[in-house]
Amino acid sequence: MKFSNFFIPTLKEVPSDVKMKSHNLMIRSGMIRQETTGIYSWLPLGYRVLSKIITVIEEIHKKNGVNQILMPTIQSADIWKESDRYETYGKEMLRINDRNNKDLLYGPTNEEMITTIGRQYIKSYKNLPRKFFHIQSKFRDEIRPRFGVMRAREFLMKDAYSFDINEENGEKTYLEFFMLYLKIFEKLNIPVIPVRAPSGEIGGNLSHEFHLIVESGESEIYINDKILDLNFNKFTLQEILKLESYTDDFYTKNNFEKKLKKYRSIELGHIFLFGTKYSRSFNFHVDSDNGKIQPFMGSYGIGVSRIPAAFIEYSNDENGIKWSKSLSPFSIQLINLLSEDEETKLFCDKNYEKLIKNGFDVIYDDRLERPGKKFSDADLIGTPIQIICGNAYKKEKKISVVKRSDKNEITIDALELMPELNKIISKI
Amino acid sequence: MKFSNFFIPTLKEVPSDVKMKSHNLMIRSGMIRQETTGIYSWLPLGYRVLSKIITVIEEIHKKNGVNQILMPTIQSADIWKESDRYETYGKEMLRINDRNNKDLLYGPTNEEMITTIGRQYIKSYKNLPRKFFHIQSKFRDEIRPRFGVMRAREFLMKDAYSFDINEENGEKTYLEFFMLYLKIFEKLNIPVIPVRAPSGEIGGNLSHEFHLIVESGESEIYINDKILDLNFNKFTLQEILKLESYTDDFYTKNNFEKKLKKYRSIELGHIFLFGTKYSRSFNFHVDSDNGKIQPFMGSYGIGVSRIPAAFIEYSNDENGIKWSKSLSPFSIQLINLLSEDEETKLFCDKNYEKLIKNGFDVIYDDRLERPGKKFSDADLIGTPIQIICGNAYKKEKKISVVKRSDKNEITIDALELMPELNKIISKI
Repeated sequence: MKFSNFFIPTLKEVPSDVKMKSHNLMIRSGMIRQETTGIYSWLPLGYRVLSKIITVIEEIHKKNGVNQILMPTIQSADIWKESDRYETYGKEMLRINDRNNKDLLYGPTNEEMITTIGRQYIKSYKNLPRKFFHIQSKFRDEIRPRFGVMRAREFLMKDAYSFDINEENGEKTYLEFFMLYLKIFEKLNIPVIPVRAPSGEIGGNLSHEFHLIVESGESEIYINDKILDLNFNKFTLQEILKLESYTDDFYTKNNFEKKLKKYRSIELGHIFLFGTKYSRSFNFHVDSDNGKIQPFMGSYGIGVSRIPAAFIEYSNDENGIKWSKSLSPFSIQLINLLSEDEETKLFCDKNYEKLIKNGFDVIYDDRLERPGKKFSDADLIGTPIQIICGNAYKKEKKISVVKRSDKNEITIDALELMPELNKIISKI
Repeated sequence: MKFSNFFIPTLKEVPSDVKMKSHNLMIRSGMIRQETTGIYSWLPLGYRVLSKIITVIEEIHKKNGVNQILMPTIQSADIWKESDRYETYGKEMLRINDRNNKDLLYGPTNEEMITTIGRQYIKSYKNLPRKFFHIQSKFRDEIRPRFGVMRAREFLMKDAYSFDINEENGEKTYLEFFMLYLKIFEKLNIPVIPVRAPSGEIGGNLSHEFHLIVESGESEIYINDKILDLNFNKFTLQEILKLESYTDDFYTKNNFEKKLKKYRSIELGHIFLFGTKYSRSFNFHVDSDNGKIQPFMGSYGIGVSRIPAAFIEYSNDENGIKWSKSLSPFSIQLINLLSEDEETKLFCDKNYEKLIKNGFDVIYDDRLERPGKKFSDADLIGTPIQIICGNAYKKEKKISVVKRSDKNEITIDALELMPELNKIISKI
């Protein structure tokens, strides 16, 4: 992608009410734009990050037999009256009347709807288990939306739901999602910590959250530092329940004797095995050899549009964002400092084409801007590798390759670039 | 994908108010579910079709330098007051009050929002042209939502917007989108006809729609049959404007002497060069050598969630849907009629794996259902190629390959299947 063809409206200043670093950097790098309180547009650079996250989440869910669907944003109030949450949900629910004065609402979550879907079609225990997910906008009319897309009113969520024949199978599914979440965040290069969360009701209910430790986070978790080094891959559910790793709430309620270390963090995922709560409310049952049974359900959420902000909060410096390869909108930024010099331009144009042919996701800064602006924009938008072509190329056919994360720089012969690129990248 | 792991809740009966064939087939094949009036969930089979369409639309837009963004579904009423459309839009606009009694609305379209985005960031003629698209839910509170996802209230739309420095460049961009739309529908194997549409205002405004001819369509177009055979690839805008191909409205208004043939059709796309209408309303101007100029704009829509319904309307028979390869949720349906026979099951299991390894998008009917149900489900969901394995395999190692579109069937040796598959598919 040529910078000149791609819309990255970087800004020098942001509104004074922008307090959080990630919010500031996302506005300054032209990733997002506030449309009204707590409601944002994703501009091209931001959307690329979002779409990389979506791709990973979709792939891993589908590979694990979770069926992708798309439920609508607008729901009938009727199903929320059936579950008794219409009145209790409070002012966070965006209530709407249509032209016929029918009560609608913008879905803050989809337990009610998925249960009615299950109830209509799943009639026999032979049709279980079933697992569904969708990635869809949600709306929660927060009293104090803040920190940009970190706590927006309209946001993108991945929510999955499971139906099982009984608690034992429900727990198996819960463990599957636990592992699936770890895989997703591993593939996204985000070192989340699973923490036990309170599950509200008594009996068979389980809940974990997945947090990223960041000093500016709004949440607090309590953990035994040993769990930072664990590989959970082959853990059983029993082993997971023994982990010393808790949300603030869970830790406080249980009044553990042992003191654990407190960290500030951002919640990125949440899994919840709530059992028959909704299948009871909706009178949803399936036939089995032992008569009618109420499916055992769980829900599994990821705050998709919060992930870019959380990662930026975790990985930045005074100059801008430091993307990992898996989340970065581009993997390489090719910077031509002498856009008006024919020879340098020719070299950059050619290598831009070659990089693309070799499968690299390149952004090529071909703009007629002064070098200072190009450097600061590159550091701001945070592409992991910068290839810089300027006077050293003009004079002695040398170019620089810079690693954004630590600004480590090496100078190489221009001709070395293509044949040696992978080696160069791994070296710096 | 194994049928047993994939949720396809086929139904025998549909509600009596389901009148249109595509609506009936989408409900019966378990593609969609109505959640409330004019609001649908896309179930796994339906979502696969939707996602194939989305992929093609995204690819072709991006390849043509249109930047992908994501604007929110909820908009502030303020910008609609600025363009004077808040009052005039009427009851189709879903108006919402948030907890602070602020006027919001569910976007029926995004001209207002994209213009405010342009106004904030685009300051110089050097930043033009700019082209953006997003794929996002829209809501239009239709007085009579009907025909399932064909005329739903919440629907998925691709809308693109362009900014140019003047009319001449605007017309170039318009022509680009005209060609881009033809490419998209060609890649989707949907034979749309471009028809001239009225453009509302006087002066420089242009509008075309892209229609699929279908007897049950709600629209009417007037065309000279010759245009059905044209290849528009190298047409200039002037040549396009001379085409004898019009919407009902345009034809009636212009009172043409020559009689053209009338067809019923479904509108799938709409492109509209509206000039400075919104840049004027929003006082959006950029600097140029000749002082301030108002960008020349266009908008370009595709009714994404209407496409599956329209195609089904166009391609079906008494047994179900006849998908083309490009839209079908799966390319091959492997049907095991003897699921309980070890040897047949082994053969099918093995070939299912091989087909997947060879890049085919297979649905494998491994269910313990009677053959009649498997045949009727296969015809209903409309996978283009069926591979049938039953008694003939058991007795003499023969299997059948059936083309869904014309039910043409050939019998082959089971061992021929994998090495010869592409040849077999092209033969039938």
